[in-house]
Amino acid sequence: MQKIWHNCHVVTMQDGHYHMIHHAAIVSHQQRIVWIGESAALTGMAEAQWIDLAGAWVTPGLIDCHTHSVFGGNRSIEFEQRLEGMSYAEIAAQGGGIASTVRATRAASAAELYQSARKRIIQLLNEGVTALEIKSGYGLDLDNEAKMLRVIRQLAADLAVDIQATCLAAHALPPEYQHRADDYIAMVCQEMLPRLHAEGLIDAVDAFCEHLAFSPSQVQRVFACAQALGLPVKIHAEQLSAQHGASLAARYQALSADHLEYLTEQDAQAMAKAGTVAVLLPGAFYFLRESKLPDIAALQRHGVKIALSTDLNPGTSPVLSIRLIMNMASTLFKLTPEQVLAGVTLHAAQALGLQDSHGSLEVGKFADFIAWDIDHPAEIVYWLGGDLNKRVIYHGEERSASSL
Amino acid sequence: MQKIWHNCHVVTMQDGHYHMIHHAAIVSHQQRIVWIGESAALTGMAEAQWIDLAGAWVTPGLIDCHTHSVFGGNRSIEFEQRLEGMSYAEIAAQGGGIASTVRATRAASAAELYQSARKRIIQLLNEGVTALEIKSGYGLDLDNEAKMLRVIRQLAADLAVDIQATCLAAHALPPEYQHRADDYIAMVCQEMLPRLHAEGLIDAVDAFCEHLAFSPSQVQRVFACAQALGLPVKIHAEQLSAQHGASLAARYQALSADHLEYLTEQDAQAMAKAGTVAVLLPGAFYFLRESKLPDIAALQRHGVKIALSTDLNPGTSPVLSIRLIMNMASTLFKLTPEQVLAGVTLHAAQALGLQDSHGSLEVGKFADFIAWDIDHPAEIVYWLGGDLNKRVIYHGEERSASSL
Ligand SMILES: [Zn+2]
Ligand SMILES: [Zn+2]
Repeated sequence: MQKIWHNCHVVTMQDGHYHMIHHAAIVSHQQRIVWIGESAALTGMAEAQWIDLAGAWVTPGLIDCHTHSVFGGNRSIEFEQRLEGMSYAEIAAQGGGIASTVRATRAASAAELYQSARKRIIQLLNEGVTALEIKSGYGLDLDNEAKMLRVIRQLAADLAVDIQATCLAAHALPPEYQHRADDYIAMVCQEMLPRLHAEGLIDAVDAFCEHLAFSPSQVQRVFACAQALGLPVKIHAEQLSAQHGASLAARYQALSADHLEYLTEQDAQAMAKAGTVAVLLPGAFYFLRESKLPDIAALQRHGVKIALSTDLNPGTSPVLSIRLIMNMASTLFKLTPEQVLAGVTLHAAQALGLQDSHGSLEVGKFADFIAWDIDHPAEIVYWLGGDLNKRVIYHGEERSASSL
Repeated sequence: MQKIWHNCHVVTMQDGHYHMIHHAAIVSHQQRIVWIGESAALTGMAEAQWIDLAGAWVTPGLIDCHTHSVFGGNRSIEFEQRLEGMSYAEIAAQGGGIASTVRATRAASAAELYQSARKRIIQLLNEGVTALEIKSGYGLDLDNEAKMLRVIRQLAADLAVDIQATCLAAHALPPEYQHRADDYIAMVCQEMLPRLHAEGLIDAVDAFCEHLAFSPSQVQRVFACAQALGLPVKIHAEQLSAQHGASLAARYQALSADHLEYLTEQDAQAMAKAGTVAVLLPGAFYFLRESKLPDIAALQRHGVKIALSTDLNPGTSPVLSIRLIMNMASTLFKLTPEQVLAGVTLHAAQALGLQDSHGSLEVGKFADFIAWDIDHPAEIVYWLGGDLNKRVIYHGEERSASSL
């Protein structure tokens, strides 16, 4: 039976713009949208189930396109130690930083990783997330990367949310490969990626291009390998220095280049040409007290689509709230609420290669949407915290806390 | 019957410090704590009701000591207009800013103000707030200030939370008194405060001391009037410029001086001597993209107690999350998690004059506490967003969403 979601106002976010429809209705059938428009234009629906949205504003479901939600332990102790005056060097000397997360992730069983990640993802879902991406990258050897990726697939199977799995084996150099980064990259390309892909665990391949991670030429080898396997790529680039990883990624038609604080005009141009989405991560910018803003004007000048994400991770962005990221994108990065909403809907879908089925309210796409108890869409970005008394619809079904 | 809350670890926050007790138990009777300590030391409790906290960390209930939660409308449209490029002058010319909130608050019925404020306060309660303060200050005439304060009293009567009501008639100059600030202050002192106090609507008196609000000498008149009525005072001071309102407030033994970005060493000294709490409001600092940090070192040098609060208000801090403020206090203001926790428990209680009954887990105080599903207290400050699967106990009773 068709469902008619009515007595609402809609921002469709088609083409990344509000496209407001006042006094709207959405008709869903099975998991998809089959009609959307003004209620008054709706005819011949006697057999359908009517659902009254009580004057709510409806947006597409939120999409969190860059997360590291699966990890062992957390870094709250380090967070406290730093604030109590311990230096980064002292924390590194005691085995802190990403190394501690790699140790904890390797030490954790799949069941432990699953349980802790599940709790975190449910927080995102409670805020209206209907699709998200999760990266591996704290295992850094075949068995542990496989363990993380299987946990991600299990979460996707169990939770009412679409989850894309990204292999980020090129996240950091594992301790057993110290001073042998090229050897590690060779192992990733020759052994890890082919085997993880053969097991069906990977939707995309990511790499961290930075002086404290991997060089552009090492990242390029990973991308060439992904390309040979038919897997799309993406990159962590220009977060702490200008390495032109974004341009490199564009040469491989990357889905997205992420962070981008040190992006150059040429990088922006290359991304625009390749259709590579810019994923900005204001949570890490805030948490690290960065002062260098990404050159958003350059991205806009060249027509690069901008997405936004939590970057949920234990070291630099322990952010369990996509709505907080939305406010930060306006308050810290000066994006308008409309641009922000596009950044967590249509453009985030594009960053995952899902723009044909997700990210806007259009006939044929999944019926993933949120009915917010607000007077104007800008309120979703304006308020910090609070749940805005919303209802979340995923694939045509209302999602309650118990249905998660 | 006594209740024994056991299988937990506790930070009592006595004297503003963690004072961790591992493997602890708390015994409550009626609304109060009657025993607290290590479980192993507990004897002769056969008749009591045992409640298993499943290894949680327990903190005092959170106290939000500075809010403007009752108001008409909101300013999300202005927020959007500013981001779309409209200047402050254009927004003021169209009647924006605090004037628009005063208009909307005056136009709203008590029932409308109650309903919108109730929704916002429930968001705070969902995060573990067990006591809060709410200010008037958008009515700015006798009838509308009385309307706001009666709404605050009604919220206090209906919700499972302790609410202190503060009269902030000296918040802004109402339009009908343009260019007659002294006349308005005279009316506040001679008519409003005595009548509102006679009706039992006021627990404390606040004033906004700033070049765009009221001068120190005008604020002093308000404080003298409050003192004559036997009401404690507090102040909004040094937010945008150094006016020494904090020192003025200290001369009147103010409960707190709030904001304080432009505080001087002498102000800190005066506050310390008077026992006036410094209430820092990182939400407004963040939302306004301020760069001048309050001189926290000076406050600490002189032993001024530091509290933290949402400053929940529609213009400069639309913050429905005290936990976000806790993270900002560490990330932006560099307070340690222990200092932050003191700032939303014992020191916030002191900012409301409630330190003898609230703010720490000690025998004789209210059994207001939170059991958090975490491994270390620093996690409460470290994570941004998420509910940390907590249980909230208010006056000895577990508070569920339905019991609000
Ligand atoms: Zn990342
Ligand atoms: Zn205030």
